[in-house]
Amino acid sequence: MMQVQANPGPTDSLLDVGDLKVGNAHDSSVVTGVTAIIPDNPVAMGVDVRGGGPGTRDTEALDPTCMVEKVHGLVLSGGSVFGLAAADGVISHLSENGVGLAISPVAVPVVPSAILFDLMNGGDKDWGGEPPYRALGKRAAEAAGEPIQNGSFGAGFGARAGAERGGLGTASLVLPDGLAVGAIVAVNSFGAAAEAARAEHGQVTLPKLGFPGTNTTIAVVATNYELDKAGCKRLAMMAQDGLARAIRPIHTPFDGDTVFALSTGSQTGEQDKGVTMAVLGTLAADCLVRAIEKAVEAANS
Amino acid sequence: MMQVQANPGPTDSLLDVGDLKVGNAHDSSVVTGVTAIIPDNPVAMGVDVRGGGPGTRDTEALDPTCMVEKVHGLVLSGGSVFGLAAADGVISHLSENGVGLAISPVAVPVVPSAILFDLMNGGDKDWGGEPPYRALGKRAAEAAGEPIQNGSFGAGFGARAGAERGGLGTASLVLPDGLAVGAIVAVNSFGAAAEAARAEHGQVTLPKLGFPGTNTTIAVVATNYELDKAGCKRLAMMAQDGLARAIRPIHTPFDGDTVFALSTGSQTGEQDKGVTMAVLGTLAADCLVRAIEKAVEAANS
Repeated sequence: MMQVQANPGPTDSLLDVGDLKVGNAHDSSVVTGVTAIIPDNPVAMGVDVRGGGPGTRDTEALDPTCMVEKVHGLVLSGGSVFGLAAADGVISHLSENGVGLAISPVAVPVVPSAILFDLMNGGDKDWGGEPPYRALGKRAAEAAGEPIQNGSFGAGFGARAGAERGGLGTASLVLPDGLAVGAIVAVNSFGAAAEAARAEHGQVTLPKLGFPGTNTTIAVVATNYELDKAGCKRLAMMAQDGLARAIRPIHTPFDGDTVFALSTGSQTGEQDKGVTMAVLGTLAADCLVRAIEKAVEAANS
Repeated sequence: MMQVQANPGPTDSLLDVGDLKVGNAHDSSVVTGVTAIIPDNPVAMGVDVRGGGPGTRDTEALDPTCMVEKVHGLVLSGGSVFGLAAADGVISHLSENGVGLAISPVAVPVVPSAILFDLMNGGDKDWGGEPPYRALGKRAAEAAGEPIQNGSFGAGFGARAGAERGGLGTASLVLPDGLAVGAIVAVNSFGAAAEAARAEHGQVTLPKLGFPGTNTTIAVVATNYELDKAGCKRLAMMAQDGLARAIRPIHTPFDGDTVFALSTGSQTGEQDKGVTMAVLGTLAADCLVRAIEKAVEAANS
């Protein structure tokens, strides 16, 4: 048997992967927020959608059969369908800074995105024709470069996890040879976080009718190992198992659970690619379990 | 909060769902086997493939956009690509008994199938031009109607789970209102069964190089609740989380992990469909966790 041991990196956050920045912004009267992930250089990305009610933007382009090989940013947002506008603000910020495909007079940044539903959390959603998400997206992009805090920040600012507060969480695991995996998650689950392991078999606790349809856990895992879009998709698929282990129930018709994976590609190495993929996927799921625990713990403390 | 309590049914097996039969056959010199699931009437079915190396047959027809609404049987088999012939034997048996679509002079049974890799388990695979799987499939179909035993039976006869013996396992959960979920699984995982919950974060144990690529956990969950093909797909997706909870790592590039879900449809009821789906999916994942535990425990005792 081959045994590998990974440990949390220096910041125990997505930032330990290197070559990327994270920015958060929130609106405390609306009770919502946005998280922007901005790589220093374009990155390969994949996505795995497992919830029954996802809200996403520019994810089809991540399919390995589609043209764009690398993308320029990623946005997690509150606000349900309104939050899909957050990517507009990130795109503007990046384009103004010259980041994007050089295929037109203006730089064309490709920025996939996913949202969670936080419209029933008591915040003031009376925004009329001016939802706050485009502006929040821009602010999040401008803030990129700060350390990431766990708890009520960014896309997790207005989130709920079962009967508790949800939140934003992050974690990392680094192998002795320098391969690193990091995760960031906004937990807004229908199910209870950290319930999976201690669930009594056959007993299911659901929120009263009326709450279903108002959920979603969205996450990003990143690695410095060089993966193409298909490899990122496999990493996202394996990372999704972290949600299965940390939240119960999960992947219901009422969740929009979506996991992105990205590769900065700074590490190439001579490792067997399949084995490396299996190791990184396992660690990505583990990172996500810890990120979820940290999110909910920090948001409720 | 709404709380529902389910308990194992009288046989704690897939059979508690009712209106279906299971048959197993094995060859103890080849060290392989086949499991056939034969519903009393055609059933809606869905499938969710999450492994990186799946081996399947007639699964594309289960897509909700495809024509056939209900299918006539399902086969789990050892034998890797050779085991895809097991469905031939089941199809012959069903057609000879007049089971199938009535669209030609002979009945046309639609029988999806998935295989696991058990070619490296020490059995005599020197079958030349005559692999045993068609005959094993026919024998499994003919045997349908017996109780299901956990351990080294059917598709799990030659299976491995990490460093242990794998096997066949089954379990059920029944709600007070009669809604039932059952699972049957052939555990042949790259990862160690029942390892997920007790895994130390960040520590990954992999078989030595050479073993990867020789794996796969295949499973079926069934319910008596009336679901269409899309509903069955969602049930399969949620059930897949049972694999994530019971086996680690799982869904690697070396696994062909595939979960089918079928609905016999004997229970319709007035329940909210989304909530029922969420409950049944949660129970299906729980059933699969227990079925995996039972498979490995029985095979190694």
